[in-house]
Amino acid sequence: MNYDYLLYLAIILISTKLLGLVTRKAHMPQVVGALLAGLLLGPACLDLIHGSTFLNQISEIGVIVLMFMAGLETDTEELKRSGLASFIIALFGVLVPLAGGFGVAYFCHVASPDLSASELLQNIFIGIILTATSVSITVETLKEMGKVSTKAGTAILGAAIIDDILGIIALTVITSMADPSTNILLVLLKIAGFFIFAIVFGIAFGFMIQKWISLDPKPNRRHVIMTFAFCLIMSFCAEHFFGVADITGAYVAGLVLSHSSKREVIYHEFDTVSYLLVAPVFFASIGLKVELSSMSSNLLIFTGLLLVVAILTKILGCGFGAKAMKYSTKESFQIGIGMISRGEVALIVANKGESLGLVSDSLYAPIVVTVVITTIITPILLKAAFKDKKNENPTTAAT
Amino acid sequence: MNYDYLLYLAIILISTKLLGLVTRKAHMPQVVGALLAGLLLGPACLDLIHGSTFLNQISEIGVIVLMFMAGLETDTEELKRSGLASFIIALFGVLVPLAGGFGVAYFCHVASPDLSASELLQNIFIGIILTATSVSITVETLKEMGKVSTKAGTAILGAAIIDDILGIIALTVITSMADPSTNILLVLLKIAGFFIFAIVFGIAFGFMIQKWISLDPKPNRRHVIMTFAFCLIMSFCAEHFFGVADITGAYVAGLVLSHSSKREVIYHEFDTVSYLLVAPVFFASIGLKVELSSMSSNLLIFTGLLLVVAILTKILGCGFGAKAMKYSTKESFQIGIGMISRGEVALIVANKGESLGLVSDSLYAPIVVTVVITTIITPILLKAAFKDKKNENPTTAAT
Repeated sequence: MNYDYLLYLAIILISTKLLGLVTRKAHMPQVVGALLAGLLLGPACLDLIHGSTFLNQISEIGVIVLMFMAGLETDTEELKRSGLASFIIALFGVLVPLAGGFGVAYFCHVASPDLSASELLQNIFIGIILTATSVSITVETLKEMGKVSTKAGTAILGAAIIDDILGIIALTVITSMADPSTNILLVLLKIAGFFIFAIVFGIAFGFMIQKWISLDPKPNRRHVIMTFAFCLIMSFCAEHFFGVADITGAYVAGLVLSHSSKREVIYHEFDTVSYLLVAPVFFASIGLKVELSSMSSNLLIFTGLLLVVAILTKILGCGFGAKAMKYSTKESFQIGIGMISRGEVALIVANKGESLGLVSDSLYAPIVVTVVITTIITPILLKAAFKDKKNENPTTAAT
Repeated sequence: MNYDYLLYLAIILISTKLLGLVTRKAHMPQVVGALLAGLLLGPACLDLIHGSTFLNQISEIGVIVLMFMAGLETDTEELKRSGLASFIIALFGVLVPLAGGFGVAYFCHVASPDLSASELLQNIFIGIILTATSVSITVETLKEMGKVSTKAGTAILGAAIIDDILGIIALTVITSMADPSTNILLVLLKIAGFFIFAIVFGIAFGFMIQKWISLDPKPNRRHVIMTFAFCLIMSFCAEHFFGVADITGAYVAGLVLSHSSKREVIYHEFDTVSYLLVAPVFFASIGLKVELSSMSSNLLIFTGLLLVVAILTKILGCGFGAKAMKYSTKESFQIGIGMISRGEVALIVANKGESLGLVSDSLYAPIVVTVVITTIITPILLKAAFKDKKNENPTTAAT
């Protein structure tokens, strides 16, 4: 038996925390330091730690726990109010990056004639990758600043869920063009099925679990354990039966329990598991994925352009959507920035494209660089965008 | 990507807790229910969940965290006082089961002529397997009863560490007889090296970390994170550099920090990670390993005898050692019972023996049955042995 994973875990815990404290000293969110730690430890830099199934699965549980906690914290009344707005924000946040990504790919001639798919489809696929939004880093940053349940925070969470769904639809349409075995109608039905499932099972089970929890006035371990199991089952079902991201399932599970009488206790227990084990692994694992092979000058230009377009199209697209829905300019800007991060969602989409012959191997490095830099830049920009003119709010927890 | 592990984790959380509550209703420790849950879910029964690298590694972190917490809770003054006694208890707790295991194997003629090692060595090896002690289930049971820092509890913990070391020495002696590439002297030097390392690094680092923690009067997350990293590093070093069990490293890490001013806070945070994620996986994983193939009548008799001998030799051996060191009859009995559980240590030894041609495949089922039943019976017997004549102490935490 190999015990290296114990050492890797220790190194990840130490480095994410130390760099997190460094970035905090530099008035940036701690999550930036945690992301940099992964970059530093991975093949792009020191090459100390490689991704493994263990780290990937712990990291997946990390992002599930983060999204569940975001659900717990969400102001559901505000979410209902912002439903239509979230949809409009997400719609523009998908269309503008789709066009932008396509434009950059077309302009740089990155489509490869060796692949089976046509150059047009390959160029569109780069756009599809840019439509993805990974809200987990934004959530962590908002949590650090105590801004999850602000108007902009709620709009970001709502829009990110819808963005996930629009992204799945867009991915499905294009893969069905490249791979005749995919049935668009079936995918759309499954997505609709997930929402029916989430409403029926989520609310019914959520009601039962809340009744059960409130039977006992004291907070009990068994309540927290069953809550965690519920969150995992919702995540599993979302992916397994409906093809929707597991983190969407986790977020819905959190939403369902957000009215529970023991919300604070449950939140606190999850928070401990998160900061002490699963979240550092998740943050580090993003940086660990970066492998910078030697890039041609054309690819370097493509990388730079893709990055700039990735950032600007989300700010402009989502910001425009928010402005159209009567959010203030400052809030629109906050919302646009909150949607920049591509995170693991874009990497999953890129992986899918690679296996379908829609993305050539040489484009993987530019895509990963874009994902990592958008993910690192999001908390920095968010902090600036949420800065009050007066004093900042203190963070909620000692770190 | 396969998301089954999310479902498995949910099933493990639900079943270990539900069966734990059932066994508590039946006045047995909850850990018995958690062990039964693994048996029920695994190939021996419903065959719902199979072991995986992910579950194995989470389970290893689970046992590391449990042993670290046992170290944190240990009364070090009492441990120093009981040092010689622990040694004597462990010595008899190794010699008596060694003789007993050898006797049963010899009596049942289980040695296989197909293996390269002589029948004598094969019979001795069955004895070696019975020398192992897995203290983690005992620790969990003592924790549930609030008895970790009793005189008997401390003697058990001390004796288990020494047992681990004596077990390594015995294993090394016999493997060096079967495999000429093992150097006994080197192994003994490495064990000595671990204790020098534990004393020097452990105390130096422990001193530094305690100074650092006490700089800040408030409990901070970074203290807990660095403590966890320290525990993981000690576990890794024990296995990797010294060939000593990782859980011994974790226990020493806990001991070193047991005088910390923030011991309570650190303990509480580890406890949350333990009950909510890693400990249920550890308990379930023991039962998951049981695979009952069709056994011949000779093997069934061997299994029964091995089990009885495994239980009696630890009670008699350790009990005699304790009695010789002037513990009361009740305490001697408690100590003997606390050492019955073989747990993962015996399985690791059996694995090692299999790869060296010292144990035939057909003996694996009897060994696993012995391990699992000794592990399930330990908490039941312990609870009976610790029962006060008056009311029992209430458990320390709500469950």
